[in-house]
Amino acid sequence: MRTITPRTPPGTMELLPRRQIAFQRMVDVIRSAYERFGFLPIETPVFEVADVLLSKSGGDTEKQVYFVQSTGSLEQGQDPDLALRFDLTVPTARYVAEHEHDLAFPFRRYQIQRVYRGERAQRGRYREFLQCDIDVIGRDSLSVEHDAEIPALIHAVFSDLQVGDFAIHVNNRKVLRGLFASLGVDGTERQTAVLRTVDRLDRLSPDQVAAQLTAEGIGLDAATADAVLDFAGFRGGAAETLAHLDGLGIDDPTFAEGVAELRTVADGLAAYGIDESDWRIDLSIARGLDYYTGTVYETFLTDHRDIGSVCSGGRYDDLASLYTRSRLPGVGISIGLTRLFYALEQAGIVVDGPSTVEVLVTRMDPTLHAEYLAIGRALRDAGINTEVHLADAKLGKQLAYADRIGAATAVIMGAREHADGVVTVKDMASGEQTQVPRDGLVAALTGTRAG
Amino acid sequence: MRTITPRTPPGTMELLPRRQIAFQRMVDVIRSAYERFGFLPIETPVFEVADVLLSKSGGDTEKQVYFVQSTGSLEQGQDPDLALRFDLTVPTARYVAEHEHDLAFPFRRYQIQRVYRGERAQRGRYREFLQCDIDVIGRDSLSVEHDAEIPALIHAVFSDLQVGDFAIHVNNRKVLRGLFASLGVDGTERQTAVLRTVDRLDRLSPDQVAAQLTAEGIGLDAATADAVLDFAGFRGGAAETLAHLDGLGIDDPTFAEGVAELRTVADGLAAYGIDESDWRIDLSIARGLDYYTGTVYETFLTDHRDIGSVCSGGRYDDLASLYTRSRLPGVGISIGLTRLFYALEQAGIVVDGPSTVEVLVTRMDPTLHAEYLAIGRALRDAGINTEVHLADAKLGKQLAYADRIGAATAVIMGAREHADGVVTVKDMASGEQTQVPRDGLVAALTGTRAG
Repeated sequence: MRTITPRTPPGTMELLPRRQIAFQRMVDVIRSAYERFGFLPIETPVFEVADVLLSKSGGDTEKQVYFVQSTGSLEQGQDPDLALRFDLTVPTARYVAEHEHDLAFPFRRYQIQRVYRGERAQRGRYREFLQCDIDVIGRDSLSVEHDAEIPALIHAVFSDLQVGDFAIHVNNRKVLRGLFASLGVDGTERQTAVLRTVDRLDRLSPDQVAAQLTAEGIGLDAATADAVLDFAGFRGGAAETLAHLDGLGIDDPTFAEGVAELRTVADGLAAYGIDESDWRIDLSIARGLDYYTGTVYETFLTDHRDIGSVCSGGRYDDLASLYTRSRLPGVGISIGLTRLFYALEQAGIVVDGPSTVEVLVTRMDPTLHAEYLAIGRALRDAGINTEVHLADAKLGKQLAYADRIGAATAVIMGAREHADGVVTVKDMASGEQTQVPRDGLVAALTGTRAG
Repeated sequence: MRTITPRTPPGTMELLPRRQIAFQRMVDVIRSAYERFGFLPIETPVFEVADVLLSKSGGDTEKQVYFVQSTGSLEQGQDPDLALRFDLTVPTARYVAEHEHDLAFPFRRYQIQRVYRGERAQRGRYREFLQCDIDVIGRDSLSVEHDAEIPALIHAVFSDLQVGDFAIHVNNRKVLRGLFASLGVDGTERQTAVLRTVDRLDRLSPDQVAAQLTAEGIGLDAATADAVLDFAGFRGGAAETLAHLDGLGIDDPTFAEGVAELRTVADGLAAYGIDESDWRIDLSIARGLDYYTGTVYETFLTDHRDIGSVCSGGRYDDLASLYTRSRLPGVGISIGLTRLFYALEQAGIVVDGPSTVEVLVTRMDPTLHAEYLAIGRALRDAGINTEVHLADAKLGKQLAYADRIGAATAVIMGAREHADGVVTVKDMASGEQTQVPRDGLVAALTGTRAG
């Protein structure tokens, strides 16, 4: 029979089991931190009704959407009526609007699911990738205290992930808009264009950004562009930055509101016990999306700035104006885990970690089959993940197998050990072997694991 | 602005947060049991290259497939080149064939992911549903001992899920094929047709099945049909059933092999400590799929037989003959969790369980904001999932919110309590309130939780 070449679809991340375990551990750590801060899980279907999903987005996003249709619909020449979600924000907006009367507000939800974009396939770009989002969504209002809670949670997540030092950068769009207004740069669209340009300061030099700000389209004069860049370039501790902002003498209500919000975030982060070395006010970040209206966040790994922001988000005025007349202000962040995982793999930070299999009970003597099963059962009853080798093979081959699946320990019992009531415990990493009484095996392995 | 009616796509299960938690708990229990038995996780992309996915399946399955294409591909009038997976077996076959040289055999994998079928929308039928699969896949051979391990694992899963009594039914297709051969019913296709008909005994009466066996198409004579039904109708303990099979005097090598395999499973299950009240040899089950070649399994909830089998699977000769020339025999099972969850909800067995939020720290006095944050921090540091209420509201409203999010405990501290160095702990279920010293709060709550 002719065989078909098996191949993973391009633009997707498929992992071998030991690497999958490392990925899953990161998901578990993130989920655990989200839950520790009192967020509730939701999940939405992978596809949405196309006209619900695509009601807002246009342009670039729509071009990258994956449409879905059944064989029947395809054969009848119909247009697809479903589309895969391209982020978690739109499905969450739909969810909150649809279930509004069954939810308690503020609605604190986390959502960890894959999203899909028809990206051109290239290294490190994925068509399927896992997003780990949290949002706090208020009805009518949401106190700015939540804007301080979010970076405290980012701090917990990245501390728990143990991927090295990181820094959370915080800014507030009201501060930037207030500044622009004070410089005579008026109008939401023009301000948004300036915001987007300033946001490129992480990739472009100040001169390049200045050139864009003064170019046709935005058309700031050179002095104004310099003032904007001067402003964005300020570096200092939180208290120093806030004093600097106060001292600028900018008399604009939006600016004052933004500074007050930044101060609330700074005070909150002190109360959350977040050290100033782990976060800063960064007046240069703006986030590209129109969506954000106040506080914005980006997070950088200190030793891997080239990865870019690994956790971003911000405050928005209204989550779901497309789907409901209720006003739903919120604040949230997103971790793009697939991309982060890829970057950490490339940087050699992610490696195959501890396996889900802790112990392999080997099979030296087929006549002791029931004994091996009993050992496996005792270990599992003690909560130790255990495989019992169920086929006859040379011990060396069984140990090589233990090594490949990543079992930390192999348990060996031949006829003589059985007669003596002992088993041999082999530490697969060190190769060290110790004999323990058979009825002390669970205690010995539980002790090892705790140690 | 005109709003769009938010709506969940038909045929999908979308849950409110508290119900989502109950669902997630079941996933976690299943995953934990799979890992306890030494299975390794894999995940595959939601879509596969269409001609890889659909190379084998035809007829009914293909009609139910969802095809996927990007906006660009759609606009160019191309045929979709991707399709959503409709089960986890085909993607696993593709995965194992593709990564064969990087895997250790026997390859013990679990996979918990959603699959998609373009079903006609109706109550309890889902277009998106979560499958929880395990398989042990050998290269060239796989010992029958694994056929005993699988029901031991099913037993662990359904014990852990705590959904009431259950019974695992085990049969072996070789026994049935051997019987058919001994009755002169030859030929794989004809035997398969008889197998499929016998498999309907859980839904049809023996008379109805007899009618189908003797009808045109299969065309058994009445005596043979009776012999088949007699055989399938045997009821007895495992030892009794095996003795009965031995005593039938059927001289057929396939039959003998099947009986020997059933005996291995029975002996294994005794060694795994599985009580005979929780499993039986059921000579009437066959599983519809051609795929299975030996042991087959079905699992029934004793008090909810109407749900049908909640965990099924079996032994197969070759997983991935479409994708590789290597012979990959295996044995596995699948739990259709979405359907099971729906049925358990309908039966009132699944209810909103304990929330992921354990404690709500209320906000009685805005001037104590930093104190509330510090309490929240101390609780989280102790591993207690805690939300701190961050907006001003009447205490009654905050407690109603605690109730809605399912927090087991509310912590209350007004100005006087703060001055006295105490906090009030309110048990949300009983309404009981106790005062504890503030520095004893973590101990008090950790104690409660362990209790």
